[in-house]
Amino acid sequence: MKATGIVVEYNPFHNGHQLHLNKARELTNPDVVIAVMSGSFVQRGEPAILPKWERTKMALAAGVDIVVELPVAFSTQHATIFAEESIRILDALHINSLFFGSEHGDANDFSEAAKKVANNEATFNQMIKHSLENKKISYANAYTLALETLLGEKKLDVTKPNNILGFHYALAVQKQNPTIKLQSIAREQAQYHDEQATHTSIASATAIRKMMLAGESEQAMRYLPISSQEILRAYSGPFLSWDDYWPFLKFRLLQATSEELKAIRGVSEGIQNRLQLAAITAKSFPEFIEQTKTKRYSNARLQRTALQILLNAKDTKSKPYIRILGMSKLGQRYLALHKKNIPLQVVTTASKASPGILTEDLKATTIYTLAKGLESYQKGDFQIPPIMTL
Amino acid sequence: MKATGIVVEYNPFHNGHQLHLNKARELTNPDVVIAVMSGSFVQRGEPAILPKWERTKMALAAGVDIVVELPVAFSTQHATIFAEESIRILDALHINSLFFGSEHGDANDFSEAAKKVANNEATFNQMIKHSLENKKISYANAYTLALETLLGEKKLDVTKPNNILGFHYALAVQKQNPTIKLQSIAREQAQYHDEQATHTSIASATAIRKMMLAGESEQAMRYLPISSQEILRAYSGPFLSWDDYWPFLKFRLLQATSEELKAIRGVSEGIQNRLQLAAITAKSFPEFIEQTKTKRYSNARLQRTALQILLNAKDTKSKPYIRILGMSKLGQRYLALHKKNIPLQVVTTASKASPGILTEDLKATTIYTLAKGLESYQKGDFQIPPIMTL
Repeated sequence: MKATGIVVEYNPFHNGHQLHLNKARELTNPDVVIAVMSGSFVQRGEPAILPKWERTKMALAAGVDIVVELPVAFSTQHATIFAEESIRILDALHINSLFFGSEHGDANDFSEAAKKVANNEATFNQMIKHSLENKKISYANAYTLALETLLGEKKLDVTKPNNILGFHYALAVQKQNPTIKLQSIAREQAQYHDEQATHTSIASATAIRKMMLAGESEQAMRYLPISSQEILRAYSGPFLSWDDYWPFLKFRLLQATSEELKAIRGVSEGIQNRLQLAAITAKSFPEFIEQTKTKRYSNARLQRTALQILLNAKDTKSKPYIRILGMSKLGQRYLALHKKNIPLQVVTTASKASPGILTEDLKATTIYTLAKGLESYQKGDFQIPPIMTL
Repeated sequence: MKATGIVVEYNPFHNGHQLHLNKARELTNPDVVIAVMSGSFVQRGEPAILPKWERTKMALAAGVDIVVELPVAFSTQHATIFAEESIRILDALHINSLFFGSEHGDANDFSEAAKKVANNEATFNQMIKHSLENKKISYANAYTLALETLLGEKKLDVTKPNNILGFHYALAVQKQNPTIKLQSIAREQAQYHDEQATHTSIASATAIRKMMLAGESEQAMRYLPISSQEILRAYSGPFLSWDDYWPFLKFRLLQATSEELKAIRGVSEGIQNRLQLAAITAKSFPEFIEQTKTKRYSNARLQRTALQILLNAKDTKSKPYIRILGMSKLGQRYLALHKKNIPLQVVTTASKASPGILTEDLKATTIYTLAKGLESYQKGDFQIPPIMTL
């Protein structure tokens, strides 16, 4: 059986995702599509707008065969780790192709760029280090700058958000298993960051979340496929944002010692002092981010750091594993077929996982369910079996 | 100038407190009355129902001359520490008499009992240790048992809550400065623990809080002196209880590591595991306490431990100091007179205190103000000068 891997957040699943999924099938012609999906918290350092179980249902209903949760230790980190660990999971599941959307669209250029960086890694890392030390810029900007310098040509515009993410996937594939075939397609409509929905049926996830959080669910519906609409209509819980967790973050920042914060993943260079001061004065999470950002700490990095503090995530290395959130009939057959040769632990029931392996994710989802209206999801993460479709 | 000291919580100030205060004046005939008062959190391990500033206003309006905040590190501990540190502050302020209410009423019997214990301290401590090791009872019960055995007679019934507290005051006076004269009076009406108001104008603070929290403020008013009623009517904030802080406690228990909890004041014998488990299942703070209590961990001890976790209070020794919350004209004169010979740091403006000395109290009050409706008190504790009356 042939498998194509995709890296997704489905926050929430929308028409653009459906197009992407259809194209993945069309261009790579797999038996199954495997999606690695962020769980309760997404890469921008935010709570997902819907519980992961709802987003899993949407993915399965839209045609994904296996939904695997990207552990929170990786899903809420900068693009390098996010991509590396997503590819590690997909490679362990023996995908033949990796499909991703990008502004650029031509996978070969990503492969070439990745090879160039992989072959000049020492120089590349030196360039990043140099920028970080000499210019007061963020890691992401230093990375892009080094990439532009090393690649030397403008074929692949790595300042575009999906191009840079695609490059990270390509580099991870290049390092971990270059036999995985890369496939991409240009995202013509709805740039990721567009806040306004400009097209009749395609809008960015950002724009859709904005509508949902503003109470305009019905308006958001038109940008979702029918299958997702049905799941959304059946969902009676709240739409989540940082607003729901800001009181907890504020409390923890006011309560914690500086030493405790220093031990948190991503906290460095005394940022904890800025965060603690802003916790007293800021009246909302956006205000908090506004008050703490610097040239070096981008919004995304600050949000991710705030999230690690919310989750009390220590700066230790986490072990990758494969938690199955949902499977189609075909997906089940695929997994059964490969059962014996998957190099990472596969977890279908949380309560049966090796001791400690799920701790960080269970904690993250428990904290996620502290938001008002999610009470029915509490305790659930430990007990809910994967969602199986027929 | 002659001073009489009293140890209070005024949670809230009521007619019983007014009687007690009048009796203190009548029987000890002082120039000033100095009250050491719990601040944002009280000895039972609970948030005070009203901010300390409102309770200070009530105390001054009722005739107290100097209101000193008992630091939170001492106000939320078991009776031994609570009493020792309250007396330390009053002694530093050179009180001549200590006045306290009790079921027993005769101060001489308290003094005698205290002398007996002070003279047999090694034996006494050995008896407590023996009970703790051999019977599965709480520290408070072991203490009472040792006391009953040592005193040998039933003259002073130390199973009564105000008698045992009075005994602790007497013992602290005996140890720190036996020249302080003890005075007591029998509390005839409204036993501390009575939940129902039985008398027409006297009700226990517990019963009054119950009315206030049930939205029956007007009914509660009749148990308060006019001066307190006026302050209560002018107060537009909420009445606080553990309900307001339960979401934060729950969040922290779910977020913290077992190691972090073990470092908290009062956490021992693996109680943190019971607390963390109950945080998942309990739906309210009372349910949480119900689920965690054992023969060894009384409700009060559990509440105090929960509070230390809420405040992230480490198990380290705190330094006593004298924070003035309010003064009458006479109180100001008294302080000015003694300014040069007070052995503890006197803090009238928080921002002028020695670095670190107020940290724990400022944090406690900041966390107290996280309750909905207390926003206007945020940041305030650092800036509010003592309340001065003319």
